[in-house]
Amino acid sequence: MKKLINSPDDVVRNALKGVEASDPEVRVDHDNRIVYRAQKKDQGKVALISGGGSGHEPMHGGYVGLGMLDAACAGEVFTSPTPDQMLEATTTVDGGAGVLHIVKNYTGDIMNFEMAAEMASDAGVTVETVIVADDVAVQDSLYTAGRRGVGTTVLLEKVVGAAAEEGQDLAKVKELAQRVADNGRSMGMALTSCTVPAAGKPTFDLPEDQMEIGIGIHGEPGRHREPIADAKSIAKQLVDPILHDLDFTGAPVIAMLNGMGATPLIELYLMYGEVIELLNEAGVRVERNLVGNYITSLDMAGCSLTLLRADDEIIRLWDAPVRTAGLRWGL
Amino acid sequence: MKKLINSPDDVVRNALKGVEASDPEVRVDHDNRIVYRAQKKDQGKVALISGGGSGHEPMHGGYVGLGMLDAACAGEVFTSPTPDQMLEATTTVDGGAGVLHIVKNYTGDIMNFEMAAEMASDAGVTVETVIVADDVAVQDSLYTAGRRGVGTTVLLEKVVGAAAEEGQDLAKVKELAQRVADNGRSMGMALTSCTVPAAGKPTFDLPEDQMEIGIGIHGEPGRHREPIADAKSIAKQLVDPILHDLDFTGAPVIAMLNGMGATPLIELYLMYGEVIELLNEAGVRVERNLVGNYITSLDMAGCSLTLLRADDEIIRLWDAPVRTAGLRWGL
Repeated sequence: MKKLINSPDDVVRNALKGVEASDPEVRVDHDNRIVYRAQKKDQGKVALISGGGSGHEPMHGGYVGLGMLDAACAGEVFTSPTPDQMLEATTTVDGGAGVLHIVKNYTGDIMNFEMAAEMASDAGVTVETVIVADDVAVQDSLYTAGRRGVGTTVLLEKVVGAAAEEGQDLAKVKELAQRVADNGRSMGMALTSCTVPAAGKPTFDLPEDQMEIGIGIHGEPGRHREPIADAKSIAKQLVDPILHDLDFTGAPVIAMLNGMGATPLIELYLMYGEVIELLNEAGVRVERNLVGNYITSLDMAGCSLTLLRADDEIIRLWDAPVRTAGLRWGL
Repeated sequence: MKKLINSPDDVVRNALKGVEASDPEVRVDHDNRIVYRAQKKDQGKVALISGGGSGHEPMHGGYVGLGMLDAACAGEVFTSPTPDQMLEATTTVDGGAGVLHIVKNYTGDIMNFEMAAEMASDAGVTVETVIVADDVAVQDSLYTAGRRGVGTTVLLEKVVGAAAEEGQDLAKVKELAQRVADNGRSMGMALTSCTVPAAGKPTFDLPEDQMEIGIGIHGEPGRHREPIADAKSIAKQLVDPILHDLDFTGAPVIAMLNGMGATPLIELYLMYGEVIELLNEAGVRVERNLVGNYITSLDMAGCSLTLLRADDEIIRLWDAPVRTAGLRWGL
């Protein structure tokens, strides 16, 4: 295993030290493994928290800051944070207007966020929850009943973060979050497996001439394996299932071409060029985009495509200022 | 070879298509492989161009835009662009106040930029040149007489780009560029080799339990190989040679912890945490930082550290607004 770490047990703890040292806009509660904004949001505004297993950086800690999350809970690698972490984050960020929990659809995350929401409610904090389940690859999976939650989470945190920042109330924020979740679709592929530090070896074997289509962000199995094809064919295998699942014509679309952690940017640019050609042919109008590493799977090589069928309000909120380690514009 | 490409011959051409599709702020001259700003800088301001072999994305095309470069010339992978490309870029961006060529110290780049500068001068454009040679790892190298030019280039393009944007004249811009080049130092390491698409196999063999200290951004040999150590020891092997080469105390410092292309962000954060601890112990005051993939080497896993001994003006220019694919803030 070739990794820049001290020991497999210390990866998350050590990485959070670096997160705090690199971003003056956040503070880390190292005991509870929670990343907070250094400057708390104004009282009376809805607060947003998310969280999940580590290994998907910059998600979620890198999305804490003005215009996105108020706090993010870090679990061990590919392991849900605990209800206690989520409760602590929820009660700390609440400014009296309630808290939205943004949850990716994995059994552990769902269960723990649910418990945290109940405990927070007992403590007098109003909590709403949105569940992201946007991966069109498979119906059920290793850690999930129903679709896995992947790339749409990033877009949702940006759009809904902007709505909370401008003072929309919890009902509106929740409705918007659900609209984004309902209108986002993703599909991924891998050239190589990731290696979980504690395991010390690749999660799965993928022969030198094979790729896996429909991979999950924890290395969960996808749809099938096949010989490595050219970028044009791979783009088609990402675009087609997404367009088959939802009509993306007749609306402005936000597209994200995401690297899985070990994919160089030159390849992501190249893939985006192929994807956009297919979308143009299909009459899909991409108005905003991201190309880069936004929701990763440790050192997996590969990429995923996320499309969000947006509307004027979503585009307006997308363009609103954001200042986080992972996304930054307009400020 | 596992890569998201169509064919080894088309990598740069295809990737430039994606660059243009993803960034509304740039235009690509596909015949000449030049990335330009979509909106040209005001007449009367100094223009900045850079360029070099592809494979180091987001450098240089990703640094074209307001507050940084006016144009970037893309060569084939790890191959210098031609004097004709550089001449075309130079004459196109000149707004009457002259053009600064930002050149990394590699024999091919130096030679071709020199020829382009002469031809541009014959065509009536005043050109100044700054050469970046900041890699403390080795004195001479495979493609270089003298030190290789690496990470300081990114910081220089940002700082000097801001000076040109605010209207400083060519003499001042050149003096500032030289000051940045003189005060930047870098040191890198690799866990794995990169694979040049046209070669189809790793540039060098690095056994599963070994790492290379002092690696170049084209996979040029470093100082030595040794068994993979923990992040703390690796951080020391990056920090020590840099601090030995230049005194970084008593001035504000800009630090960049850079990924080589296949290094996940969780490891870069972790390494940054270790680096900053060592710098604190050494009395070095880091006032600004970057952690991420800024000057890569295709799919190499590893990282590099760059430190810039700044001053008040350099910090002020660092904080000035920038809007490029690779760096974006304040706008």
